[in-house]
Amino acid sequence: MIWRRKDLLGLEELSKDEISLLLDQAEAFKEVSLRPIKKVPALRGRTVALCFLEPSTRTRASFELAAKRLSADLLSFQGSSSSIAKGESVLDTARNIEAMRVDVLVLRHSTSGAAAQVARGVKCSVVNAGDGSHEHPTQGLVDLYTIKEKKGRIEGLNVLIVGDILHSRVARSDLWGLTKMGAKVTLCGPPTLVPPAMEGLGAKISYRLEEALPQADVVIALRLQLERQQEKYIPSFREYTRAYGLDRAKLERAKPELIVMHPGPVNRGVELSPEVADGPQSVILDQVTNGIAVRMAALYLVAGAHQDSPEVISRSEATRDLTAENEISHPPGAGSK
Amino acid sequence: MIWRRKDLLGLEELSKDEISLLLDQAEAFKEVSLRPIKKVPALRGRTVALCFLEPSTRTRASFELAAKRLSADLLSFQGSSSSIAKGESVLDTARNIEAMRVDVLVLRHSTSGAAAQVARGVKCSVVNAGDGSHEHPTQGLVDLYTIKEKKGRIEGLNVLIVGDILHSRVARSDLWGLTKMGAKVTLCGPPTLVPPAMEGLGAKISYRLEEALPQADVVIALRLQLERQQEKYIPSFREYTRAYGLDRAKLERAKPELIVMHPGPVNRGVELSPEVADGPQSVILDQVTNGIAVRMAALYLVAGAHQDSPEVISRSEATRDLTAENEISHPPGAGSK
Amino acid sequence: MIWRRKDLLGLEELSKDEISLLLDQAEAFKEVSLRPIKKVPALRGRTVALCFLEPSTRTRASFELAAKRLSADLLSFQGSSSSIAKGESVLDTARNIEAMRVDVLVLRHSTSGAAAQVARGVKCSVVNAGDGSHEHPTQGLVDLYTIKEKKGRIEGLNVLIVGDILHSRVARSDLWGLTKMGAKVTLCGPPTLVPPAMEGLGAKISYRLEEALPQADVVIALRLQLERQQEKYIPSFREYTRAYGLDRAKLERAKPELIVMHPGPVNRGVELSPEVADGPQSVILDQVTNGIAVRMAALYLVAGAHQDSPEVISRSEATRDLTAENEISHPPGAGSK
Repeated sequence: MIWRRKDLLGLEELSKDEISLLLDQAEAFKEVSLRPIKKVPALRGRTVALCFLEPSTRTRASFELAAKRLSADLLSFQGSSSSIAKGESVLDTARNIEAMRVDVLVLRHSTSGAAAQVARGVKCSVVNAGDGSHEHPTQGLVDLYTIKEKKGRIEGLNVLIVGDILHSRVARSDLWGLTKMGAKVTLCGPPTLVPPAMEGLGAKISYRLEEALPQADVVIALRLQLERQQEKYIPSFREYTRAYGLDRAKLERAKPELIVMHPGPVNRGVELSPEVADGPQSVILDQVTNGIAVRMAALYLVAGAHQDSPEVISRSEATRDLTAENEISHPPGAGSK
Repeated sequence: MIWRRKDLLGLEELSKDEISLLLDQAEAFKEVSLRPIKKVPALRGRTVALCFLEPSTRTRASFELAAKRLSADLLSFQGSSSSIAKGESVLDTARNIEAMRVDVLVLRHSTSGAAAQVARGVKCSVVNAGDGSHEHPTQGLVDLYTIKEKKGRIEGLNVLIVGDILHSRVARSDLWGLTKMGAKVTLCGPPTLVPPAMEGLGAKISYRLEEALPQADVVIALRLQLERQQEKYIPSFREYTRAYGLDRAKLERAKPELIVMHPGPVNRGVELSPEVADGPQSVILDQVTNGIAVRMAALYLVAGAHQDSPEVISRSEATRDLTAENEISHPPGAGSK
Repeated sequence: MIWRRKDLLGLEELSKDEISLLLDQAEAFKEVSLRPIKKVPALRGRTVALCFLEPSTRTRASFELAAKRLSADLLSFQGSSSSIAKGESVLDTARNIEAMRVDVLVLRHSTSGAAAQVARGVKCSVVNAGDGSHEHPTQGLVDLYTIKEKKGRIEGLNVLIVGDILHSRVARSDLWGLTKMGAKVTLCGPPTLVPPAMEGLGAKISYRLEEALPQADVVIALRLQLERQQEKYIPSFREYTRAYGLDRAKLERAKPELIVMHPGPVNRGVELSPEVADGPQSVILDQVTNGIAVRMAALYLVAGAHQDSPEVISRSEATRDLTAENEISHPPGAGSK
């Protein structure tokens, strides 16, 4: 199987095989970050533009390092949707970026569907780094990768997603990815944040964490957006934490091999108690580490998909170990030139 | 002819031969951006500092990519003239940047003459990326390059520049460049924005677009700075657009092979109607593409001009194709080391 | 002697030998910045994260260029301590950065001890780029390096530090470094800014510049933080300048070979008169130049200290001249592949 898509816009439209290809490619790249020389020539001379029109520190940093470890050249735009695109639609901005011969445009935008709209209007590849409350596909892939790494498989696992499902693009990408890969997903949170209509997407719904937790092999706690007016949806943070926050007491009723995930940054004491966030079942920092490998895979596959000569980046070349090369580049003997 | 200037401050002081050299060098670099590996080693190990003391997204991005595709190391300062240079004059700031062994300092500043003042005070090269309403020479070169690319020549063409000539550093650089290269320039706009004194610079002046447009081979529409208080100069935006905005109806009275240019970002519906901005005569996105090649040429030539050993960057080396190198860097056979 | 420390947190804890090692390594790297190709492969494929949670232009730029000239990949976080670490402690932020397989974390933070706290909590190297009013060790090393370069030695010299000693992390690092290297240090300023308790640290204290200046071989003027409410500590700026500002008249009573240093940016007319800041005795721009070499040394040594295979970066490799390589990388003859 080879990757054929110009863009990575969401997990909804991907087949199980395509997701598997992304996860396999991520595994090849994960090894790269364990080397002393954490860099491969895969995208040398290609240009990746990061266009983050919503605040982001972690996802942007993760994409930035992914691009740099692939040896790509990087161009970074930040700011709010309005200030950057002064007088322009996001598509105008994207066409201007494309005109600079950018190979991959990574876009975060506050509007659901923005990445897809841009992708239709430009020839370069587009990777969706979060569009409104629609999808955040690389985060979904990070979660799949981390589950597979820790549990050895995804199929047949019970995965519980807890929190503000309604507004969460992470939840949506997780849900599509997990169900395609054969996991059984339960969504859990207060009824205001877990609309009954979501059952149609192939997930069970639960409003009581104590009921859902004992079956779970994996729990993904979502970040409450404290900045946004979530008072409309929850009675109080204390109430929320009492009902849906994970602490040591609640984990005692869960399977001992349960793993705890969170897309970060954690509101400590709200979604997770500090002991749980830093505890032995937490794989949150593994998610951060895996984020780089998954994003390297996403950039590499979409960049290769629409090359005139797709053989330019061969797979073995993509993960070439530069360590030896760095050491022995000036062999001293005669005839060395 | 070889390039001898330490700095690129404006087109006013350049000879026709110097401008031609810049355009030829840009053509050599334009080809680089069409390769899979859009990168040459020309400025490897050199340092380019971008010091943008006025807001800029596009010009900064264009210089940034130009520097990266030349393999230069990049240092970027942004902010307002005041915040960056806290307690310091811009020359103090520049001397500090120079002390970091920067090879080329790209400066945007709100004061006319700032780049020239800095250039006199430092030994490193200075490229003016816009100084007040004085000059924006790389944008002028982009326009010359794009006209030559689309029309095959510059000499003898009728070029019409429309809009706020008074405050436009782009207009000033265009005017110097175009007249030196033998084009006939007409400046068009309301009398408040096109002072009669400008006729002394070798351009015709027209206050009626309908009169000037039919002769034009090229029209360059300037951006109205909506942020600034242009109400002092024009009765209303609607009035301005009616008189000086380009739309399909007005283009019907122009030559069919007319090309439409704009330095961007376009205020759609003000200087250009959307059909014109995106229409077949628009070469606005070509200007964006050519911006990289022109800025690569500018950085490369000034960086080479004052090297102790000017041969370090040879011309063939500057545009060396790295594609093959990337593929065959680990030859498998014996004796390959 | 080889470098064994994971971190560089302050000069207080370093031995004389360790400081000498850092200065020697800086000397090897200084030569690199004099080459046409100012870049070595020493940290190729390593990742350096700059996490500046206090405003900084110069120190950040100096670290950034140092990292780039070592060929490291760079990740840069800026902002205030609160905005970056939204809901997180600085240690949480650092653990997340570490999880991205960052090799060296360069941290500036407004709290004394922040770097040490982070260093204890992460396995990657930490370089303190200023923590509250505690230490700024690389600036201290810059000052030591510059004194040694200009005077040929540090031991036995009389060094006078003038200004706001109380709040200055630079003064503290200078004091530790200078006394360890055998210089005699005098601290000078108004009693509100030079607490008598500092005599315990091995320095003499003087409240009268005219008395202390004639013996000095080196004077380091500190920056008055005009932004902060220093009215609490000094009667007025004019008064301060009259008593402790260096001008040509005061220098007439000093040794003719005295050198004048300042960590920058200078408040001209306050700590130094313009003639002194730009005069023949000023070595302020040399400090800026040396800042890159010293920071290259710091990054290189800490990055190498905890490698699994410490031989990966050999010393000769670290300063390999890439100039020749750049020229002759495609030998034209047969059998060259």
